[in-house]
Amino acid sequence: MLKPVRVGICGLGTVGSGTVNILKRNKSLIDARAGSDIQIIQIGARRDNPHCDTSGYAITRDIFEVANNPDVDVLVELIGGTTVAKELVLTAINNGKHVITANKALIAHYGNEIFAAAKAKGVTVAFEAAVAGGIPIIKAIREGLAANRIEWLAGIINGTGNFILTEMRDKGRAFEDVLKEAQALGYAEADPTFDVEGIDAAHKLVILASLAFGIPLEINKVFTEGITKIASADVAYAEELGYRIKNLGIARRAAKGIELRVHPTLIPAKRLIANVDGVMNAVLVKGDAVGPTLYYGAGAGAEPTGSSVVSDIVDVARTLTADPEHRVPCLGFGADFVIEQPILPIDEVETAYYLRMSAVDKPGVLSKVATILSDYGISIEAMIQKEAKEGESDVPLILLTNRVQEKRLRDAISRIESLDSINAPVVRIRVEALK
Amino acid sequence: MLKPVRVGICGLGTVGSGTVNILKRNKSLIDARAGSDIQIIQIGARRDNPHCDTSGYAITRDIFEVANNPDVDVLVELIGGTTVAKELVLTAINNGKHVITANKALIAHYGNEIFAAAKAKGVTVAFEAAVAGGIPIIKAIREGLAANRIEWLAGIINGTGNFILTEMRDKGRAFEDVLKEAQALGYAEADPTFDVEGIDAAHKLVILASLAFGIPLEINKVFTEGITKIASADVAYAEELGYRIKNLGIARRAAKGIELRVHPTLIPAKRLIANVDGVMNAVLVKGDAVGPTLYYGAGAGAEPTGSSVVSDIVDVARTLTADPEHRVPCLGFGADFVIEQPILPIDEVETAYYLRMSAVDKPGVLSKVATILSDYGISIEAMIQKEAKEGESDVPLILLTNRVQEKRLRDAISRIESLDSINAPVVRIRVEALK
Ligand SMILES: NC(=O)c1ccc[n+]([C@@H]2O[C@H](COP(=O)([O-])OP(=O)(O)OC[C@H]3O[C@@H](n4cnc5c(N)ncnc54)[C@H](OP(=O)(O)O)[C@@H]3O)[C@@H](O)[C@H]2O)c1
Ligand SMILES: NC(=O)c1ccc[n+]([C@@H]2O[C@H](COP(=O)([O-])OP(=O)(O)OC[C@H]3O[C@@H](n4cnc5c(N)ncnc54)[C@H](OP(=O)(O)O)[C@@H]3O)[C@@H](O)[C@H]2O)c1
Repeated sequence: MLKPVRVGICGLGTVGSGTVNILKRNKSLIDARAGSDIQIIQIGARRDNPHCDTSGYAITRDIFEVANNPDVDVLVELIGGTTVAKELVLTAINNGKHVITANKALIAHYGNEIFAAAKAKGVTVAFEAAVAGGIPIIKAIREGLAANRIEWLAGIINGTGNFILTEMRDKGRAFEDVLKEAQALGYAEADPTFDVEGIDAAHKLVILASLAFGIPLEINKVFTEGITKIASADVAYAEELGYRIKNLGIARRAAKGIELRVHPTLIPAKRLIANVDGVMNAVLVKGDAVGPTLYYGAGAGAEPTGSSVVSDIVDVARTLTADPEHRVPCLGFGADFVIEQPILPIDEVETAYYLRMSAVDKPGVLSKVATILSDYGISIEAMIQKEAKEGESDVPLILLTNRVQEKRLRDAISRIESLDSINAPVVRIRVEALK
Repeated sequence: MLKPVRVGICGLGTVGSGTVNILKRNKSLIDARAGSDIQIIQIGARRDNPHCDTSGYAITRDIFEVANNPDVDVLVELIGGTTVAKELVLTAINNGKHVITANKALIAHYGNEIFAAAKAKGVTVAFEAAVAGGIPIIKAIREGLAANRIEWLAGIINGTGNFILTEMRDKGRAFEDVLKEAQALGYAEADPTFDVEGIDAAHKLVILASLAFGIPLEINKVFTEGITKIASADVAYAEELGYRIKNLGIARRAAKGIELRVHPTLIPAKRLIANVDGVMNAVLVKGDAVGPTLYYGAGAGAEPTGSSVVSDIVDVARTLTADPEHRVPCLGFGADFVIEQPILPIDEVETAYYLRMSAVDKPGVLSKVATILSDYGISIEAMIQKEAKEGESDVPLILLTNRVQEKRLRDAISRIESLDSINAPVVRIRVEALK
């Protein structure tokens, strides 16, 4: 006889319905893997969802009924947001329930507090679905790569952003144009700020960084720069230089601290991750023992995300009656292990740069630019200089620099922008070799 | 105080030394993840290894001393082979020790017996390192994708084979030539049969298939075809058709049974896995809920493989004192779950095909070939017909077919080969869309 694991699900939107549908369709298989009889004993949903047949399940319109239901072993939070969701999760924990969530915003902002509450109560909080949808990336970093000192990781962890950049490259389309399509297709929210300004990716990045480095979640220290200013021209020049522009979340253990940053990035076209297109996600993780490893799959959607929720349910089911010490710690490290490493301000981060300038079509401009760069110890690794187009007096000048501190580069750029022969702000995109 | 986990390591070759070096270098980090004090208390090695400083460790020249050492909690088998290794592993299990191994041949051939012995003794056998080196693919399928009915998986799981095919494509080199280089570089064994005839990949494939489908290990039912007959011309024609040739291990749940096959395969060049080059490995897994996911990394080498061994040690450490039911079952499914699905003989497998014929340069040949194919219900999806080269009377004729049963295709080929106008055996490579 399999032991029952009684699951309560709160929220029956996209991920909630995907989760219920998977648990129903694959029940015998999932139970065989878990070694348990996984039962949905209650669903908290304000209304029905046409994508999910809930006949046979106990439904309540009040999600807190689930959190207070003494029969529920595991509460699955799929309502989203950071207010009610936080209260719901903490209520469940205080009632001694394990919690599973897909809510990256909640974990990124309140994870430290939530994990502490869970530890005090001897329950676990699992969140595989919160990062990169169906890709089991949390498990990979936390368990699969447990032998490694992680050096860095870089992820395409926002599908909408990747869809936009892919379309811009494949079809030469403009940002605004593709964004509208993404909204029409339902990829991007009506307010797309979270996607295109890197906020959603930042939520996921801090989670990955904590798992990788054993640091607390520090969402306020992530540097984010959106993809809204990427021009079709930059996509094309990048291609000409052998690079692609991807919106990456990057976490790196540098000499002086940890880098946490989300921004559009030129990466060599021949890297596997440069070929991750459309709404797909991928995370590249570099460990000192294993070298680079990459994890690829759907970053969102009802069933891909539900797949991760259910894998968390199986994990929880397996150790439901075990001592807490037999469970994997929420962030991978035991509580006594704290890495005291500062998060580097972006000024101190070192990367290479792509620079695009609009220069007056006269001799001597390049030499002036090169002199300024050289004054700041910056060298030019590659260059494209085009002829002026018919009727235009300015020529584009595209440079790739060596690795240099952000602050130093910014100072050099202001000097360049003050040149008479440079007519527009210098476009600057960071470049990473990812090797 | 962390609880001690006492590890005994048998074999101090490539993987043994990598494992010891990682455990030493990253000890504090690994212990923090495991929540245990992981101690190497004995190493069984016939001789020293210059890549590994074992001062401070207790060394024995008799590996069975480790298996019989009452202080050892976990025995790590890294000697390879299926004779002594089997005896060593079973001895350790009978002595109540957990076992970790990187030995794919051993698991593929004797896994069923070994897992049964482990179950009877309430210990676990872990083998993450046995498939795809440092990639945590066992964990991904067994736990990360636990929600999914796996539909199929396809892996580049032999680095030597992939290195050879990559060099053939990138540099137009011939098979024999690259094989010699691979041997010189130490990638391929002096006897390269295991690599180039698909035997090593078959070992790994049956393990992946068991994890994916819940079937017993059936190494004798895997169909294998080597890459030794791949000609540079085929690599080039494939490219022209938008494909790449990769040596894949494929496991698929088909209507009538499970397919288990290792063979060179044309795959669309735009698939991510088609871009996995050199000695790198990757496994593409298609789940019904999550869709396609891919896992990429180093498939061999001292530390990448050691990374997986150590992740298994951490897993075992975590549940060392837990009841067996709290551990993940060796093959992912509870013992009562048995899928009764036959393994399909290759004759009944359905795929698309790439065919290359050497045809007399006369009108009417193509029509004869097309008629024969059509008699067998086979349609032509794409074609390349080249002009005869100076001084040659034969022209190459390259076809891509629709999906058809292997037996039917073979019958069609024998009819084609009996045509007067076809002068050499028809070259036939399977084609998979992988979507
Ligand atoms: N969608 C994805 O692909 C995806 C991927 C990864 C992670 N996630 C995360 O998964 C979570 C759920 O996302 P989703 O896409 O499934 O959202 P959704 O489709 O908007 O569903 C949210 C559900 O929660 C309910 N809900 C919201 N606030 C509630 C409240 N205060 N009380 C009761 N019910 C409430 C909603 O009910 P009403 O319909 O009545 O408003 C709806 O049923 C979010 O944290 C999201 O970030 C989503
Ligand atoms: N190398 C890789 O990258 C890799 C990757 C994945 C999996 N694996 C698997 O890992 C295992 C070990 O491979 P490896 O590459 O580390 O092999 P290896 O370098 O040949 O090392 C094998 C070690 O075991 C010792 N040994 C062999 N037979 C023994 C016996 N009967 N009694 C005592 N010691 C014995 C050898 O000692 P001597 O030196 O005295 O012979 C040597 O120290 C194999 O199962 C292999 O398939 C290897």
